[in-house]
Amino acid sequence: MIILKNAEDMRSWSSSQRNNGFAIGFVPTMGALHEGHASLMRSSIADNNASVLSIFVNPTQFAPHEDFELYPRTFDDDCAMAENLGIDVLYAPTASEMYPINYSTYVNVGGVSEGLCSASRPHFYRGVCTVVTKLFNAIMPHRAYFGQKDAQQTAVIRRMVRDLDMGIKIIEMPIIREVDGLAMSSRNKYLSVKNREKALAISKALDYASEMLTSGESDASTVISAVLGFLNNIKVDYVSLVDADTMHPVTKIEKSVVLAVAAYVGETRLIDNFKFDPKTLCEDSSVFPILEKCDK
Amino acid sequence: MIILKNAEDMRSWSSSQRNNGFAIGFVPTMGALHEGHASLMRSSIADNNASVLSIFVNPTQFAPHEDFELYPRTFDDDCAMAENLGIDVLYAPTASEMYPINYSTYVNVGGVSEGLCSASRPHFYRGVCTVVTKLFNAIMPHRAYFGQKDAQQTAVIRRMVRDLDMGIKIIEMPIIREVDGLAMSSRNKYLSVKNREKALAISKALDYASEMLTSGESDASTVISAVLGFLNNIKVDYVSLVDADTMHPVTKIEKSVVLAVAAYVGETRLIDNFKFDPKTLCEDSSVFPILEKCDK
Repeated sequence: MIILKNAEDMRSWSSSQRNNGFAIGFVPTMGALHEGHASLMRSSIADNNASVLSIFVNPTQFAPHEDFELYPRTFDDDCAMAENLGIDVLYAPTASEMYPINYSTYVNVGGVSEGLCSASRPHFYRGVCTVVTKLFNAIMPHRAYFGQKDAQQTAVIRRMVRDLDMGIKIIEMPIIREVDGLAMSSRNKYLSVKNREKALAISKALDYASEMLTSGESDASTVISAVLGFLNNIKVDYVSLVDADTMHPVTKIEKSVVLAVAAYVGETRLIDNFKFDPKTLCEDSSVFPILEKCDK
Repeated sequence: MIILKNAEDMRSWSSSQRNNGFAIGFVPTMGALHEGHASLMRSSIADNNASVLSIFVNPTQFAPHEDFELYPRTFDDDCAMAENLGIDVLYAPTASEMYPINYSTYVNVGGVSEGLCSASRPHFYRGVCTVVTKLFNAIMPHRAYFGQKDAQQTAVIRRMVRDLDMGIKIIEMPIIREVDGLAMSSRNKYLSVKNREKALAISKALDYASEMLTSGESDASTVISAVLGFLNNIKVDYVSLVDADTMHPVTKIEKSVVLAVAAYVGETRLIDNFKFDPKTLCEDSSVFPILEKCDK
């Protein structure tokens, strides 16, 4: 596995892959890798001729009071995992490489980025869209892999890719969970034993709501009230039922929706969600068909 | 010459060029082509294996009261000029292709985009940066050619390309002028015979200022006052002496600067400028060395 540290070297590698007609897969991360990231890497490696993993804890998507300094950094373990899985290039630029003096360009996506996480983290998606644009430009991937846990993020990135004619296929992979149901997250490391137990309320609430929806409940406020009933012991940021494409709240469940939760367990902010399509009356697994590798 | 109308077809053509190791040059325009555009096309054709011209009158860089509807459209003449010069692809997307329903993504460049033209046209550079990003993503050029007449635009695009790791070489070509000195512009077509005569004051003022600077004048306000003295008969938008990199106003001329003028002649807004480097005591011609074509 090659480790590259700046955009010029990264582009040079990717250009040579493209000159050879190879398809490039890309998994963007902030490191502290877990099985959720591993599932993205495995898909990228299966679908493409060459795969790039990025590790960059992006300062522009954290507010000053958030956990940028504290965010877990496990670079050596991350490298070992990526190399074992078969990643070809690890792109790990420094903050000064990514944001040089007089840095002043940002990518803003409206509409789909409003509500949900952006209410409590107003600059979050500006930071995400900007860094993902920079990573896309350096890596020039054909396909990029995101986890469904960050469902709004994937919707925002999809909109950005469409709007800016980026020509990259965005693939969303299902949420990977611990045995007891907790959605995997790098931030789970922050949880004390007691709070780890409390955090289970989120996935239990979503499980219950999933049963309501598959049983035919179509009123959003009824479902949201039921979810809130599970979350008495933690500080809820939001519980929302939104259209899966636009991320706008719905009152009736008539097409594909996302039931999304964000809550603070102690100091730790956790998110989780599931997608539901009333047409099939079952959870939308978001498993995309495995694409054939490019012939050239 | 091939004419392409959507981003997917454009990317497909560019990908095949890149797969063959060809260098792609790109000249973005709003059509109504004149000798200034021709000089950009000639450079692109000389420097690259294949050249793309875009023609798109971009609605997002016009304010509602501006001349979007009126802007000259001379598509057939433009095609003839491009084909005669040897352009390989004309990319001419429609507005609905470029800005589909729910379009919501914009690229903002701060700092260098402030002052000068953005004072009277506050959304101008947001529109320019967004459309240029879209065109770059569809065309995937190695080099892109801009005219020095839009000096701030080139500085803004350069900053955007650096900040977003676009990996495209931005080449600025000298201003092309009519025999009597008026900077060529698609908007010159709006001028009545009388206003065409009045408009000459701009280039005459810049000529005079150029002589002051080459004679060693280093006080910005003295130069600006002299320029304003020439512009009594037209409505000045701005006369500014700015740093050539940052586009911030300077009070003393100590490094490379741009003396930039915008003024209304009748209803028509015209811009002009020249660059001056006090180290060489001569006008900075901004002629870049011709680059070798890519071997692969």
